Amino acid sequence: MKEVIAIVRMNMMNQTKKALTAAGVDAFFAHEATGRGKGFVNPQVLSGAEEGYEEAASLLGEKGKLYPKRVITIVVDDDLVDTVVDTLITTNKTGKPGDGKVFVLPIKDSVRVRTGEAGIKSIS
Amino acid sequence: MKEVIAIVRMNMMNQTKKALTAAGVDAFFAHEATGRGKGFVNPQVLSGAEEGYEEAASLLGEKGKLYPKRVITIVVDDDLVDTVVDTLITTNKTGKPGDGKVFVLPIKDSVRVRTGEAGIKSIS
Amino acid sequence: MKEVIAIVRMNMMNQTKKALTAAGVDAFFAHEATGRGKGFVNPQVLSGAEEGYEEAASLLGEKGKLYPKRVITIVVDDDLVDTVVDTLITTNKTGKPGDGKVFVLPIKDSVRVRTGEAGIKSIS
Repeated sequence: MKEVIAIVRMNMMNQTKKALTAAGVDAFFAHEATGRGKGFVNPQVLSGAEEGYEEAASLLGEKGKLYPKRVITIVVDDDLVDTVVDTLITTNKTGKPGDGKVFVLPIKDSVRVRTGEAGIKSIS
Repeated sequence: MKEVIAIVRMNMMNQTKKALTAAGVDAFFAHEATGRGKGFVNPQVLSGAEEGYEEAASLLGEKGKLYPKRVITIVVDDDLVDTVVDTLITTNKTGKPGDGKVFVLPIKDSVRVRTGEAGIKSIS
Repeated sequence: MKEVIAIVRMNMMNQTKKALTAAGVDAFFAHEATGRGKGFVNPQVLSGAEEGYEEAASLLGEKGKLYPKRVITIVVDDDLVDTVVDTLITTNKTGKPGDGKVFVLPIKDSVRVRTGEAGIKSIS
């Protein structure tokens, strides 16, 4: 069992939900967050800063801003991890900085509250 | 040490907090989320759809809705994991779909910011 | 690779962001939560309760309140975990109850959505 966490653009929530459902993954939850990546640098801004343009230099220094994001959490059997990760990547890739990240974490156990079922049974 | 994550109904937050406190677990944090489970299907709706009722069929197809939930995170010593999971299940079980899930994740380390204490000391 | 999760005071978000950036850590995300620690007990209140003062006793019993917090999540290479944890502790330590906690969790894998790069490449 694994926990798959995806940080995606705010406006990608709906199509990610549809893509997961289409891939057979019904159960997941999501919350709002703010975040940023590795501080992608526009090459034009970089060369401008190197040439001494103050405005470009100040843009380079502005790495503080956090952007609104959605964090989606999906707990699945090991067999489904690749499908879920692929679905998340395919759906959220625009090719522009800010597309987000997908993380995979180990899960020790899972229990469905309604029935008390544990392990794989609780998520299938 | 383990991280126990519970996704529960919004209106269960208060009694879950009280139950955890009564079980000797003081430290935890929570946030708002939206989510859904495995798309529980009402048997009446299912049989209606099978008999060709359009309205029932469209209800079956509506798996998109996410419901408001609370996510509670509790980090505890291995000895306490069963107590915490049992407390969460007992408190949140109504027997109806939407009761939620409990996940247990491994934790490598924990530090209390105020004192710099690490490991079990940081959570006891 | 590890996931470092810090629960910190609401008003520490900005200086934590600056401290992480200064430590060379650009990528992270954060969300709002409510939480509480081990129910720190004021020694004066405790001795008052022991002496039988009702008001002090009732204060001791009031362990229910959750305080607004920020949860910061940072995924880094194993080499950087100590730096990140130290930065979080140093920046957020006021010495008063409520300074928060830092947890370190194992990560199985990480993928950058924009490029599909996996592993260390996705976070560097």
